[in-house]
Amino acid sequence: MTTTHPTRIERDAFGAVEIPADRYWGAQTQRALGLFEIGDERFPAVLVHAFGLHKWAAARVNAKLGVLDARLADAIETAATEVRDGEFDGHFPLTVWQTGSGTQTNMNANEVIANRANELLGQPLGTKSPVHPNDHVNASQSSNDSFPTVMHMAAALELTGRLRPALDELRVTLQARARAFAGIVKVARTHLMDAVPMTMEQTFDAFAHQAANAVARIDSVLPRVLVVPQGGSAAGTGLNVPPGFAEAFCDELAGASGLAFAPNPSKFEGMGAHDALVEASGVLNAIAVALLKIANDVRWLGSGPRCGLGELRLPDDGLTSSIMPGKRNPTIAEVLAQACFQVAGNHQTVTMAGASGNFELNVAKPVLIYNLLQSIRVLADAVVVFSRRLVAGLDVDRERVAANVENALLVVTALNPVLGYDNVARIIAKAVDERIGPRAAALALGLLDAHAYDRIVDPARLAVGGRVDG
Amino acid sequence: MTTTHPTRIERDAFGAVEIPADRYWGAQTQRALGLFEIGDERFPAVLVHAFGLHKWAAARVNAKLGVLDARLADAIETAATEVRDGEFDGHFPLTVWQTGSGTQTNMNANEVIANRANELLGQPLGTKSPVHPNDHVNASQSSNDSFPTVMHMAAALELTGRLRPALDELRVTLQARARAFAGIVKVARTHLMDAVPMTMEQTFDAFAHQAANAVARIDSVLPRVLVVPQGGSAAGTGLNVPPGFAEAFCDELAGASGLAFAPNPSKFEGMGAHDALVEASGVLNAIAVALLKIANDVRWLGSGPRCGLGELRLPDDGLTSSIMPGKRNPTIAEVLAQACFQVAGNHQTVTMAGASGNFELNVAKPVLIYNLLQSIRVLADAVVVFSRRLVAGLDVDRERVAANVENALLVVTALNPVLGYDNVARIIAKAVDERIGPRAAALALGLLDAHAYDRIVDPARLAVGGRVDG
Amino acid sequence: MTTTHPTRIERDAFGAVEIPADRYWGAQTQRALGLFEIGDERFPAVLVHAFGLHKWAAARVNAKLGVLDARLADAIETAATEVRDGEFDGHFPLTVWQTGSGTQTNMNANEVIANRANELLGQPLGTKSPVHPNDHVNASQSSNDSFPTVMHMAAALELTGRLRPALDELRVTLQARARAFAGIVKVARTHLMDAVPMTMEQTFDAFAHQAANAVARIDSVLPRVLVVPQGGSAAGTGLNVPPGFAEAFCDELAGASGLAFAPNPSKFEGMGAHDALVEASGVLNAIAVALLKIANDVRWLGSGPRCGLGELRLPDDGLTSSIMPGKRNPTIAEVLAQACFQVAGNHQTVTMAGASGNFELNVAKPVLIYNLLQSIRVLADAVVVFSRRLVAGLDVDRERVAANVENALLVVTALNPVLGYDNVARIIAKAVDERIGPRAAALALGLLDAHAYDRIVDPARLAVGGRVDG
Amino acid sequence: MTTTHPTRIERDAFGAVEIPADRYWGAQTQRALGLFEIGDERFPAVLVHAFGLHKWAAARVNAKLGVLDARLADAIETAATEVRDGEFDGHFPLTVWQTGSGTQTNMNANEVIANRANELLGQPLGTKSPVHPNDHVNASQSSNDSFPTVMHMAAALELTGRLRPALDELRVTLQARARAFAGIVKVARTHLMDAVPMTMEQTFDAFAHQAANAVARIDSVLPRVLVVPQGGSAAGTGLNVPPGFAEAFCDELAGASGLAFAPNPSKFEGMGAHDALVEASGVLNAIAVALLKIANDVRWLGSGPRCGLGELRLPDDGLTSSIMPGKRNPTIAEVLAQACFQVAGNHQTVTMAGASGNFELNVAKPVLIYNLLQSIRVLADAVVVFSRRLVAGLDVDRERVAANVENALLVVTALNPVLGYDNVARIIAKAVDERIGPRAAALALGLLDAHAYDRIVDPARLAVGGRVDG
Repeated sequence: MTTTHPTRIERDAFGAVEIPADRYWGAQTQRALGLFEIGDERFPAVLVHAFGLHKWAAARVNAKLGVLDARLADAIETAATEVRDGEFDGHFPLTVWQTGSGTQTNMNANEVIANRANELLGQPLGTKSPVHPNDHVNASQSSNDSFPTVMHMAAALELTGRLRPALDELRVTLQARARAFAGIVKVARTHLMDAVPMTMEQTFDAFAHQAANAVARIDSVLPRVLVVPQGGSAAGTGLNVPPGFAEAFCDELAGASGLAFAPNPSKFEGMGAHDALVEASGVLNAIAVALLKIANDVRWLGSGPRCGLGELRLPDDGLTSSIMPGKRNPTIAEVLAQACFQVAGNHQTVTMAGASGNFELNVAKPVLIYNLLQSIRVLADAVVVFSRRLVAGLDVDRERVAANVENALLVVTALNPVLGYDNVARIIAKAVDERIGPRAAALALGLLDAHAYDRIVDPARLAVGGRVDG
Repeated sequence: MTTTHPTRIERDAFGAVEIPADRYWGAQTQRALGLFEIGDERFPAVLVHAFGLHKWAAARVNAKLGVLDARLADAIETAATEVRDGEFDGHFPLTVWQTGSGTQTNMNANEVIANRANELLGQPLGTKSPVHPNDHVNASQSSNDSFPTVMHMAAALELTGRLRPALDELRVTLQARARAFAGIVKVARTHLMDAVPMTMEQTFDAFAHQAANAVARIDSVLPRVLVVPQGGSAAGTGLNVPPGFAEAFCDELAGASGLAFAPNPSKFEGMGAHDALVEASGVLNAIAVALLKIANDVRWLGSGPRCGLGELRLPDDGLTSSIMPGKRNPTIAEVLAQACFQVAGNHQTVTMAGASGNFELNVAKPVLIYNLLQSIRVLADAVVVFSRRLVAGLDVDRERVAANVENALLVVTALNPVLGYDNVARIIAKAVDERIGPRAAALALGLLDAHAYDRIVDPARLAVGGRVDG
Repeated sequence: MTTTHPTRIERDAFGAVEIPADRYWGAQTQRALGLFEIGDERFPAVLVHAFGLHKWAAARVNAKLGVLDARLADAIETAATEVRDGEFDGHFPLTVWQTGSGTQTNMNANEVIANRANELLGQPLGTKSPVHPNDHVNASQSSNDSFPTVMHMAAALELTGRLRPALDELRVTLQARARAFAGIVKVARTHLMDAVPMTMEQTFDAFAHQAANAVARIDSVLPRVLVVPQGGSAAGTGLNVPPGFAEAFCDELAGASGLAFAPNPSKFEGMGAHDALVEASGVLNAIAVALLKIANDVRWLGSGPRCGLGELRLPDDGLTSSIMPGKRNPTIAEVLAQACFQVAGNHQTVTMAGASGNFELNVAKPVLIYNLLQSIRVLADAVVVFSRRLVAGLDVDRERVAANVENALLVVTALNPVLGYDNVARIIAKAVDERIGPRAAALALGLLDAHAYDRIVDPARLAVGGRVDG
Repeated sequence: MTTTHPTRIERDAFGAVEIPADRYWGAQTQRALGLFEIGDERFPAVLVHAFGLHKWAAARVNAKLGVLDARLADAIETAATEVRDGEFDGHFPLTVWQTGSGTQTNMNANEVIANRANELLGQPLGTKSPVHPNDHVNASQSSNDSFPTVMHMAAALELTGRLRPALDELRVTLQARARAFAGIVKVARTHLMDAVPMTMEQTFDAFAHQAANAVARIDSVLPRVLVVPQGGSAAGTGLNVPPGFAEAFCDELAGASGLAFAPNPSKFEGMGAHDALVEASGVLNAIAVALLKIANDVRWLGSGPRCGLGELRLPDDGLTSSIMPGKRNPTIAEVLAQACFQVAGNHQTVTMAGASGNFELNVAKPVLIYNLLQSIRVLADAVVVFSRRLVAGLDVDRERVAANVENALLVVTALNPVLGYDNVARIIAKAVDERIGPRAAALALGLLDAHAYDRIVDPARLAVGGRVDG
């Protein structure tokens, strides 16, 4: 902060602080800025917006329960709504590297909203009157219950509003590819080795199932993410919180967001531990694992173009090598894979943060929610790009796929029920030794005639399973 | 294997192998033994028993669907039941360090059951006739669908039969302690620092909520663990599997186990990926995080006896220091914490194993299920010991707890609604500076009279929350 | 990009692209911007600056080896130096979510430097002439060897320039505290339980040893971080790279940075794998583990003020609770702990990224280096704040510490060599049962006289170890 | 323990305990057995043997320093040597799930050695006289310094005696393959896509470099693993430890093991933290990452046989699919990959265990060393099997490799210095569009003549790098 910018003075219990004149934050935020000169990782805007929604709901309930004068409540609600709508994003300067309770960001929200509310009521910034950041904006609350409540709010908003639709779009896109590739018989691969016939439709149907299950996992953990500890105040006991506050607060949230927020029956559990968010991170980790499988299979099936598997053709992305002209790379699949690595690592941070709580407060809240929200955002964005810019444009190299099926040996597995396992092993061995096709080998061994062979060993039929007994 | 032990010869497609005469395994198992001389980690017995249950169910369905002769099926069912009942535990010598499909352990099961079934039918070991390990015991199956099905079976059996009851016992034991400690007012701690009053009952109620939610997490993931890919055979297409096999197989399992096993609608998904088991491991990780919080809080509250917090008294465990005579340590809480570290690490192994699948087969199945089952077992056992040998015997040092409440400063937080935040800060500052109690400081500042103070600042009432307006 | 901003047109092999007129990046960067709309994680400035240094060194060597005309080389060197000095930070708009080879950021560097060099040579932006981004700025290079080289450069610069001094400052600060606390006898704690006497100096000396070893770990891994794969070009073979390029390039780097950069004898190893960076991340993880121990011990020893251990007094940080006025929290220790959780999680991302290489290229480079650099930065910054704002201001509550020593029972461990382990156990048991001091218990049991007791059981002497035989 | 086995009675401070008559452990071990009924994970034999070596060295030094009578010392040394030599492995029944200081296993060692020493001196088991487990076997020691010392000893012995030679054997085996494959030109692959030419020798040389660096990493961390906290006794102060004990003890260890063990200058650091072992685990993690790259490349290059890359032929392992007769799978590469996943997960457990220390003692020692030793063992064993049973038998499919080189397009990258990047891009585009070879495309575009093309685009020469200027 150079001295050429105009400043104003704000005061708190520790004395006076100089603040940039056009910023709405107050003394505690400014002190934190000077103290925590660490990194530049900031909470995503969704957390700031969730704070706006949170303080709006709290003000409404405080007014209803008679804790807050209607005039002050109105001003706070207006200011909080502006925060929710992103109009004050530039007034939340702190990084995530702050007290483990998130107190500084809660105070930042209190200060911005108080200053803005006072401004709406005709006062200059910094007066702390008639609206006081602690006594009014933070009324019936503590950082210790508000911050974890906002953590759950932001996580729920992002899971439902960002990740769930992204995964659903991926599922739909994969299913469309599956339909488009119906009837294309290809060789299955187990242990990376040529196996029995299947269809390209089945490949993409399996991916679509993974995407569908990813959505189911979000839905499964969501009820516990929607449970918030608001009302616990400083330590979970609800000191200074009027009766009914938690329930009314959740009703307001639910009304405004369409999500079924509910009070945690044990405020202590929701403030001292973050098991539900660790569980949610575990779900993100499982989703990342699923997406890694899809991304890897797609890029391997598209490997080549001439010396790889070459069964899929990836759409051009307009990018190329800096030295090998015209080289096409599966860049978007690589991006998705990298996003998944990030999520798996973030899960570790969330796990250790979640495990570090003591007594009535877990004090690794900022790093926990920062990582959780980053995981959701990065995963969702990467999935959308992957769906639209890669999966939707996938095509099959039908010539290559057909040639592979013709070469594959293990189609004769279909003969097991007729000839027995050991005889079929002889066919394979002969084909390998003599570099001939499996049909030739089977007939040469005299184990069955050509008619029977062709009836049983029909790749297109084998691809849909079942058993032929001879 | 020294030559002094009697051996027999078995043969497979690769030639003859020497096997200890009294062992029921066959050539493929013996070859694997010689090949994979790595570590000594073995699958827990529950996986072997699940294989017995699996092969029993498969034989019944094969008989019903006409794939298997009734006489052979009977013999296989009897042999498989003996495996399920633990009578052949000593005949599964392989470690987990084997092919990523678990083929060697599936073949081990096939071979043991075939040998035993042939024996029941009057044949010596090693004949492979009339019951052939591949053609009959493995009929309508592949390792590629059987092994993952057994993975899900073993996980479901252990989650429901071992971990769920252990966590439920912990919940009940914690709740009993909560009731026993009703009415004991103590100081809450946030950021490890003295905060407002609460009760010891609330402390243990919060733990009990964590335990209850741990059970809910198991119940939440279970539906996906009960879905099995049996019927996919080699690559997911169901080659050589008669129609209706998967459904009838799951019905048999459900009948025998009481668990609602169901076929995976996408066999490919269940063989190529293990997202559901990665998700289950994520739940175990979240449970471990919850248990770490409980174990740590208990040992910190019991720290001392004279120079720590000293609020809880842990029961004697009969163990002591090797150098400091008579020293009592929170050994069992330390064991639980260590078990939780193991689970968190195993989760990482499960995650990387789950992420490593390609195409139609994930080939990290053995290491994945080994870690998952170890996590369940170690967690469940540690929870039972923790419940019975530590939690059940916990007592409160009421003198110490009461002295702490008397000393604590932040009871005056209750005055916020009456005096405002900044005035209360002045009381605290005065009490700290002059090393006096908060009541004396408040009265000295003339901010309210003794009557009002005592009415509002009543720790026992404050401990149950709410707001007093003056 | 709204149409109101002036733009220019650049072209590449894929056609024309519209670019903001005042930005120095080119077509490939712009295409990547449109393609990868994911998150907002950007490489730290140090990586961009390292690219400036890298392209400067490459241009000098290309000129020396006759690959590049002197006039073009001069312009490139000047432009690259400006990039190194941070003058073009605003011209690197891409996030880390890009191709796994980092090609887009390498092209971004090539394009910015080419445009700036052409400008210096009197051409407008976008001409690609006389300086071409690929043919000249990227001459003798590929993204595939340049990007990993820059990864190593940035890591080495940050490890030596940021983290090493931070840890060294911490060590010095801890040692100063140790000296300041010389002679203060306190009770040791093992298993969180009161143990034998020690000094507060020993506590801080142990921390200082951890910090010193942290520095040693950096020094230990550095030789492998300083080895770079420059010269491998597209795939490690060195195609299109003139002989001697790698050696001369490293000489330039070493001269400019003072760090002993050296060519990797196996370019393939340095491009297809990142084992050295995974190892470095493991060192950061070990350092984070060490710092967690220090941060936790400090905040636990400072817990209270009245109901905790209360042996240390933490300096005021000017922040407080939003609901509990005047409450002091160990905020900075919490920040350091959270930074350590981030590092441990990032290590997981680095591990999975490092494990994902195939053949001649690891394609998780951007996410790997993003996490590694974040770990170094966050750790270093947090350590500096911890040293200056917390450790340097630590004080001891000598009254509390002395009272604890007086109360502790296990001082009598010193009697083991005289009385034997079992007799000492009797003393402790008696003291506990009768709530008396250990001296009284020993004398009451008649095991030795007061003179002998006082000679042997002298906390100040016991704190420095050794053995007294009676 | 059924009552039909004969038992004896031993006593400790807590009373009498019944022990199997033929077992050498004592009361504290027996109590721990009854208390910790958790899992079945046991320390590997190397830790028990290291305890034998440890107690032998301690007895010798105690005798030298006059702390122990020569007759007792002799008996203890003999008994301890027998433990070191594995003669009492069956007398260490405890699992790793015990007190976090490892006290029970230290007491187990003390009890076994005391009982055996007394037996050698003519006394029956259980007398605790003339040799007492605490007073004599444990003389000058505590579990708190002995157990971590044994952790370091076992880790050092396994790193140097097991893992280092295994990695060295792998390096030599890889180098032999590199030499065997000299001159085989193949296509490089970046982003899984066909790139420029290289040789199969280069592929295996890169692997060998990874193996060589793995060895260097062990050597790099070893100096810190060899530093032990023996001499700290209960809390690091050295209470009851005679002067010179730590130094003399390390001399004995060094003499007996050939490893340069040295005393930790800060016993506190070595008992309260395990940073060096966390660092060592990080090295194992980096080695696992390197091995994953090698294992994956080998199995991908061997994928097929007809529909994969098919460039390598893996040796037969005598195992096959349970349903697909004659199918060969890269089982051993899968085993190695799984071992690496285990190591990465164990590293997480080690990290969390290492991060959990408080004050003068880390109490997650057993789980930490269990995981570290498992990682070393599993990695080493898997590497040996991988070297001998897979790498040593690798062969190249020269036909396939040659056909791939002929098909590959990007050999024309060599034309960049002559034609410029954009012209080369036109050649590639034409070859792709018209499904023709790159030579035909270049000539058709008239960019250079056939003579020049053939001189510059020579795969065998390109594979060794460098630049041709036209």
